[in-house]
Amino acid sequence: MSGGVEWALHCCVALTAATEPVPAVRLAELHDVSPSYLAKQLQELSRAGLVRSVQGKSGGYLLTRPADQITVLEVVEAIDGPSAAFVCTEVRQRGPLAASPESCTAPCGIARVMYEADHAWRQALRRVTVADLLADAERAQGPQLRDTLRGWLTSTHG
Amino acid sequence: MSGGVEWALHCCVALTAATEPVPAVRLAELHDVSPSYLAKQLQELSRAGLVRSVQGKSGGYLLTRPADQITVLEVVEAIDGPSAAFVCTEVRQRGPLAASPESCTAPCGIARVMYEADHAWRQALRRVTVADLLADAERAQGPQLRDTLRGWLTSTHG
Ligand code: FES
Ligand code: FES
Repeated sequence: MSGGVEWALHCCVALTAATEPVPAVRLAELHDVSPSYLAKQLQELSRAGLVRSVQGKSGGYLLTRPADQITVLEVVEAIDGPSAAFVCTEVRQRGPLAASPESCTAPCGIARVMYEADHAWRQALRRVTVADLLADAERAQGPQLRDTLRGWLTSTHG
Repeated sequence: MSGGVEWALHCCVALTAATEPVPAVRLAELHDVSPSYLAKQLQELSRAGLVRSVQGKSGGYLLTRPADQITVLEVVEAIDGPSAAFVCTEVRQRGPLAASPESCTAPCGIARVMYEADHAWRQALRRVTVADLLADAERAQGPQLRDTLRGWLTSTHG
C-alpha cells in the first residue's frame, strides 16, 4: 500500500472543514509535506471524482460530496486502485500435472480465498466515511477541531 | 503482496499428498518454476514452522502438521510477514495544527480503520485451511488429484 493513502485521507478530513477552495499548497503546509507530493495525491482524488479543483486566483480543492457520502474505500481506491493485492499467475496450469484449461474456467480455489479476503478488507473500508473520520478526530482532539481547521484553511487566502 | 504467496500455497497443497519428504527441486519441477526461487519460499515456510526439511539422500520437505491445522493466513504471513500493509507515519502530529503527543496515545482514527480492515482480511484467511484448499482443488480437478500428486511426488526419488 502506498504512503499516499494516509495523506489523502488526512486531506479529505481537512477538506470537510473547507467552505471555499483550499489551494494544494495550503493543504501541504497544514500537513507539513512537500506540495508536489501532495499535489499528486490530490490529482488522484480529483480523477476519482472525490475532490474537484477550482481554477483561478482563489482556486483550490473542495470535496465534491458531503463527507458522509465519501467512504474510506473510495479514497483508498483513488490512490491505490481497485485491484486486489493478490495476483494469480495460474500456477495450477504449469508443470507435468497442470490443470486442463477446461477445468480452469473458474478461479483457482487459492485465488478465490485470497479474493474473498480482499473483499472483506474492502467491505470494512466501505463501512466508514470521511465524516466518521472527522467525528473520530474530534473525539480525540476536541470538538473545536473543525472550526480550528476552517479558521486556519481560510486565514491567509481567498 | 509478493508473488511468493501463490507458490507457497500451491506447495503446501502439493505437500498434503506427500508421505515422504519431497525435495525442493521436485516441487519446483511440479510447478515448473526455478528451484532457487521456490527454495526461498520453502525456507520461509520452514522458518515459520509450517514445513520441516529432512536432511539426507531422501531428504526434502514435509508439512509439520495435518493440513487441516494449517491456515491460509499462516502461509501468507510466513511469506509476507504479519504487518499490516498500511503504515501510519503520524501525519496528525505534523504542521501548524499538529495534534499534541498527549492526544496521540491511541492510534489515529484513520489508522484504526485501516488496521480494522487488515484484521478483517486476516480473519478471512484464518478461516480457511490447507486441507480446505486441497478439497477445493479436488472438486475442480477431480477426486483423484491427491493420489496423482502422491504418485508423481514419489515416483523418482526415495
Ligand atoms: S493458480 Fe493462481 S492461485 Fe492457484
Ligand atoms: S496519523 Fe497516521 S493515519 Fe492519521
